[in-house]
Order: sequence, then structure tokens, then C-alpha cells
Amino acid sequence: MFLFLWDKMGFLSNRIFNMGDSEGEEVSIIRELEKRNTKVTKLVMGDPSRYFEIQKNIKDAYNKAVNSGKTFYLDGPGLPELRDEVSNRYLKLYGIEAGKDKIIITQGVIEALQFLNYSIIYKNDNALLLAPFFTGYAPCVTLQEGRPLISNLKESDKWEIDIEDMERLLRISKPKYLLITTPNNPTGSILSKKSMEKIVEFGKNHDIFLVSDEIYDEIIYNGAKFTSLSKVATGVPHMILNGASKNYMATGFRIGFSIIPEEDKKSKELRDSFVKLSYSRLSANTPSQYAILEGLRNKKSHEKFIKGILPKIQTRSNLITNLINKTEYLTAIRPVGAFYVFAKIDFTKLDIKDDKEFVEKLLKEEHIQITKGSSFGFPGYVRIVSLPEEKIIYDVIRKIDEFCNRHKITTRTI
Amino acid sequence: MFLFLWDKMGFLSNRIFNMGDSEGEEVSIIRELEKRNTKVTKLVMGDPSRYFEIQKNIKDAYNKAVNSGKTFYLDGPGLPELRDEVSNRYLKLYGIEAGKDKIIITQGVIEALQFLNYSIIYKNDNALLLAPFFTGYAPCVTLQEGRPLISNLKESDKWEIDIEDMERLLRISKPKYLLITTPNNPTGSILSKKSMEKIVEFGKNHDIFLVSDEIYDEIIYNGAKFTSLSKVATGVPHMILNGASKNYMATGFRIGFSIIPEEDKKSKELRDSFVKLSYSRLSANTPSQYAILEGLRNKKSHEKFIKGILPKIQTRSNLITNLINKTEYLTAIRPVGAFYVFAKIDFTKLDIKDDKEFVEKLLKEEHIQITKGSSFGFPGYVRIVSLPEEKIIYDVIRKIDEFCNRHKITTRTI
Repeated sequence: MFLFLWDKMGFLSNRIFNMGDSEGEEVSIIRELEKRNTKVTKLVMGDPSRYFEIQKNIKDAYNKAVNSGKTFYLDGPGLPELRDEVSNRYLKLYGIEAGKDKIIITQGVIEALQFLNYSIIYKNDNALLLAPFFTGYAPCVTLQEGRPLISNLKESDKWEIDIEDMERLLRISKPKYLLITTPNNPTGSILSKKSMEKIVEFGKNHDIFLVSDEIYDEIIYNGAKFTSLSKVATGVPHMILNGASKNYMATGFRIGFSIIPEEDKKSKELRDSFVKLSYSRLSANTPSQYAILEGLRNKKSHEKFIKGILPKIQTRSNLITNLINKTEYLTAIRPVGAFYVFAKIDFTKLDIKDDKEFVEKLLKEEHIQITKGSSFGFPGYVRIVSLPEEKIIYDVIRKIDEFCNRHKITTRTI
Repeated sequence: MFLFLWDKMGFLSNRIFNMGDSEGEEVSIIRELEKRNTKVTKLVMGDPSRYFEIQKNIKDAYNKAVNSGKTFYLDGPGLPELRDEVSNRYLKLYGIEAGKDKIIITQGVIEALQFLNYSIIYKNDNALLLAPFFTGYAPCVTLQEGRPLISNLKESDKWEIDIEDMERLLRISKPKYLLITTPNNPTGSILSKKSMEKIVEFGKNHDIFLVSDEIYDEIIYNGAKFTSLSKVATGVPHMILNGASKNYMATGFRIGFSIIPEEDKKSKELRDSFVKLSYSRLSANTPSQYAILEGLRNKKSHEKFIKGILPKIQTRSNLITNLINKTEYLTAIRPVGAFYVFAKIDFTKLDIKDDKEFVEKLLKEEHIQITKGSSFGFPGYVRIVSLPEEKIIYDVIRKIDEFCNRHKITTRTI
């Protein structure tokens, strides 16, 4: 028998977890709309490069690399100078001593997660995720026939971790690793220093490898403070994920950084495994590694770039939050990192049953595409990308409000 | 327990198959040599971009893409215009009608093989490979806990397929797919039209999905004729792999093409799975997709480029073959495709026991690195990259000959 891929989609007890099932319907709706030449406003991709120009010195370095013939394969683990610069970044920002040999360059963060799951997830192994979580995490687990073990976070806890729930889950099964995201996609929250310390204790007490996706670690605003796992996890086996896609807004470069700083057996074996896996797929894109090398080296230029962008993201995120909270139907807490607003829908007021129906009908009727919470393992919510200009934001939220008004329940049958 | 990756290395009955075990030793030897400032001549990477400049119009298109802000994520399956051009290429070269929807852009051919194995290989499933085969194939299988089923080719058959052996293997287990490579890495051979037709019959008769890696399909010389699987497999479920790395010599771009042209259930499901997997890792590198689009569109410029390069590869490959056959110790048949010479070592004349020892001692003593046959699942041979200039080739083969002379067995103890 020829097995179909999504047979590999995992689930745990009654926490059935699906992905990629309804995007198909959204695609058909968009096709229909485009046939009729109807413009669709898409606020689904967290792609800053569609809204902001990347740094000029990075572009120049990219061109220089291409023109000078740097179009060959690089070493599997990445350009040595780039690995050195990533090492410097962690020393400078977080005081972490992690030399070049502790750093691997991957094709985006997703490849690092593929490497992680390739290395340690076998059939029926568990990986502990905190919902809501980034869409791409779960397939990396289930494709190795592993199963995500999910601890649900609460908006009422400001999306901080629930350590009791996590420990309760250990009674079901001991996961191979815990994966956290801070600053968070989709919630825009940042885990407090206290939460980060609890996570380190959790990893230490239960011998669970810790992974922190910190790809948005420079996209912080509204006065928030960020704690990198690297800063609090000294002596505890862990890995940090980062890259060029968000801080440098160079999503199309496909450059991720993995930092595995410790010297315990788990960390050493994982590093060795990452190196072997990196050779087995030859190399990440070469000119973009040279380009990001320039981006990391020229710190002043990058600081200036980020300083110019952050106020815009803050303004737009706050505007969306304010407008949404003025509606009768949606609420959201103010994000402090990344560039998303994660809004709760009050379905008691609407003739719409769930986030999937909400997103599909909104697309069909208002030609606005946003992401359903279910895609992040968290139904009942929607995610709105906070990158577009204010004019578009006003228009989008007004239309969402009109859409809800139209779907307001006026009479109830008992 | 924290399992180590290479636990996942597969094996079949007594055909123990190892990879990545001795490269570690070569790396240590090179480190030692470099400490002493000794230059190592490396003929291990099939990386034409280290020897030839890529097309100027492709570089220009790359720069244009970067400068005009094409640094965002593309659609998972790839830039639509590029998929159209790949479609046109197959129509023009092989008369195949495979529209854009049949084509997926991947991060090199390896990612396509990861997608294939993700999609259809479950624990203990088999994939049929023909040895010698490209180093990267087997890990993609074993990482899904599948096992390569291996049919050994023979140099005496000019590396053509042995259909009886393949059918005999079916009695052990029915593989999920057969993967062939033509033109071949490491042998430099091309499968005859007759072999290709037998392969199609094999796939049809035994209901086995066929995969043909044709990444070198323009690197053909010495008057050879190439038959693409796409040309003979109409109506039979199959997939063709190609990309920018060899024909365009743009290895560092990391751009592969998958063509799944048929309309049967297997092909449709695999296509659907490839699309989903492509979205789950967001996008291949964006500017390089625009660059290769120009490469495919401007056919005249590419034809001129290839015409300029092929005579050089032919001369260099033939020179290596001639020089090697003049030694007492190594023999090889003349390659007709790709850019490698796969040479057999006569160990009866040497105080060296196998290809692994040969390669390590040659590196240590002559500071020349070539690849052991074992890396391609084929001990007793070595692979020499035929891209360097004649001067280097003369020097390398002279040193190999001197090395063998020094290791010649003069007396035998009985």
C-alpha cells in the first residue's frame, strides 16, 4: 500500500491535532475570488520582507558574493566566519561562551527542527509543545512518527507557562524535548524571567532537553524585557534557534542559526548529529551566508535598522489591539514582541461556530485572509499580522467589525 | 534514553551498509596537515562552481532580484514562473507534457528525496537503490527508519542494471520505490535506452514507484546518448529529479526541481504531499529562484555556456581515465556523463587492505583527498572528480602512482 503522508499526523489521547486540513478550502476560495479579479488582503504570512526593505549593506554583500563567484557549496555546518559571528552575537548580547563549533547554519529554523527530530524522535516518542505554537513545529515531530504532547497556555496568564500542567503531562509520557518560543508567534508575548527559570528547573529536574526558538529576539517593544534561554540555562542541556528571517527581515535567504552550547553527553551527541546531517544535505544557500555575515559584522548599521523599524511595528500592533478591543466580538492583549495580534473571538455573539468558519467566511465575504487559531493548535482565536500600514489596518478591522455585525445573533431558538 | 542518530543507519540482511564513519578520520588527518601548513589537493566535492564561473546573465538576474527586494518568502512549491519554465524545459527536451502543477522547487535534490521518504517510507519499509549510488540517498531512507535494498551493478556490464538481481531482491521485500541515477555519480555512466525501458517494465510489472535523479542530464560527452526516464515512462508512476547544481553549475543556490508528471493515484498523492511539505518549510531561497528563472528562459545563453564547458570536462575525464589505466594498480572505464572517474583498485598488488585505508594513507602521505567507494556503497573503488585543470590532474595521478609504487607488495609471506 502506498501510504499517504498525513497518516503520519500525530495525536495524543483526546487532544486530536490537525493541520493543513482546511487551508485547501481557503485556497479554493482565493482562486474563485481571483477569477473574478477580486483583490484579497492577506494578513497571514509573517513576512517582514514584504513590508520593509532589508539593509542596503546586506544587499550589497549579497551581490558582492554572487559577483565574486561565491556560488559554490559551503561546508555543511556553514561558513566558518558566519559561525564565528553568531558566536560573537551570543557573547555580546547574552554573555554566552559558545564557540564556532557549537553553531550550525541551517536552511531556516525549520531545518534545525527537522535535524532535531531526525536525531532524537523515534516512533511514538513525544515532544512537549506549548500551545499556541508555530505551525511548522508539529509536522517535524509527526513526520518522524513522534507525537506532540501539548500543554495549553492561557491568555488570562498572559500566555506564561503552566508548570503544573507540564508536570501532569509527564505522567502520560516523558517527552524527548520541550520546545518554547519567545518572543512568541502567534501571541506576541514574551516569557518572563521567572518562567524561563522555571523551564530550566523543569529541564534539569526531569532530564528533558530544552529548545528555545528565539527568532524574534530583537523584535521587542512596548517596554518589554526579554530573557534568552541561553542566559539562564548554563549547565543544562539546551539549544537556541535563531536566524536571518525576522531580525534581519531576510525571510527569503533561508538562513537559520542553531546554538548548542553545553558540554554534556546529550548536547555533544546532538551537535555531532547536526554536523553529519548538515553534510548529508551539502550546504545552505551560499551567497546569503556571506550576506548575513556582513549583517552580523556591521552592528551599527543593524542597530540603526532595527531602531527605525521597531516603532512602526509597535504602533501597528497597538493600533490593531486597540481597534479590536473596541469591537463587540474580538479581544486581544497587547503584544510586546514579534509582529502578530492573537485575538479571541466571542462566538456566543455570532452565528459562526468556530475559528475555521470565521476565517473562511471572512475571506469569502470581506476578501480578508487571516489565520485561524487551530493552525497553531489553539481554536477559538485568530492571528492578524501587524506589519501593514495603518491605513490598511483601519480598513481591515473595520471590515472585520462589519462582518461580525452582519453575523451577530439577534434571536436565539431554544 | 537519548538515542544517537546513526542508530537509524539502515542495513539489509548481511549487506551491512555504513556511512559517515570514517570521514571523521579524514577530517583529523586534514586538520593535522593544515596545522603544519601543508596544502591538501581535494578532489572530493562534485562542485563545478569551484572550477567554472557561472553564467553572467544568471548572476545579473540574481543581483536584480536582491536589489529589487525579492528577499521575501515565496510560495512553498516555488516561484510560479520558474515552475512554468521547468515545465517548458521538459516539453522542449523530452516532449513531456507536465504543467506547472506537476513541478515543485526544492532546496536541492536532497530535499526532494527527504520529501519522498517523509511521504512514503515508514519503519522497516524498503527503498531499492543501485550501488554504487550517491552518498546522500541512503540517509534519507534510514532517517525514516527505512532500509535500503541494494542491487549491485557491475563495471563489466558497463554499470548497466541487472534486472534479474533486482527481481531476486523482490523476494526479500517489495520496495516502496526504485531510485536510479543517470548520468551517474560516481560512475560517469549513462543507462542505455534498453535499460531505461526495462526499468519502466519493472516499475509497471511490480507496482513500484520509479524515481530518476537526472541532475547531470546536460553533462554528456564522448558521443554518448541519454534517455530521460520521463521520455519512456508515460503512463507509469514516476518522478524526475533535476536542478541548478550541475547543468547550471550553481551548486550554492540550492535549487532542485521535482517533476511528478502522471495522473495515477500514487503520483497525485505524492504531489499533494510534496506541496504540503513545501509549505511546512515555507520556501526555498528566493533570489536564486529568480536567477535560475533567467537561466532557463535564456536558452541561447545557456546552450553557449554548456557548449563551452563540455569539451573541457570530456578532456579532463578522458585524461584521468587514460593516466589511471597506464598505472599498474588502478583501472577505470571512460565516463560519458557527469564529472567523475570511478576507478577500481587492484589490492592484490598493494600492502593496503581496502579503499578506506587507501584513501586515508593517500591523504596522509601525498596530501591528496579522493572519495572511497564505500561512501557510495561500493568498496574496492575510489572516485576522482574530473573538474580540475590538466596540470593538476597530471600531478595528482603521478602522485597516486608513486604512492602505489611505494605500497607495492614485493614479497609475500605464505
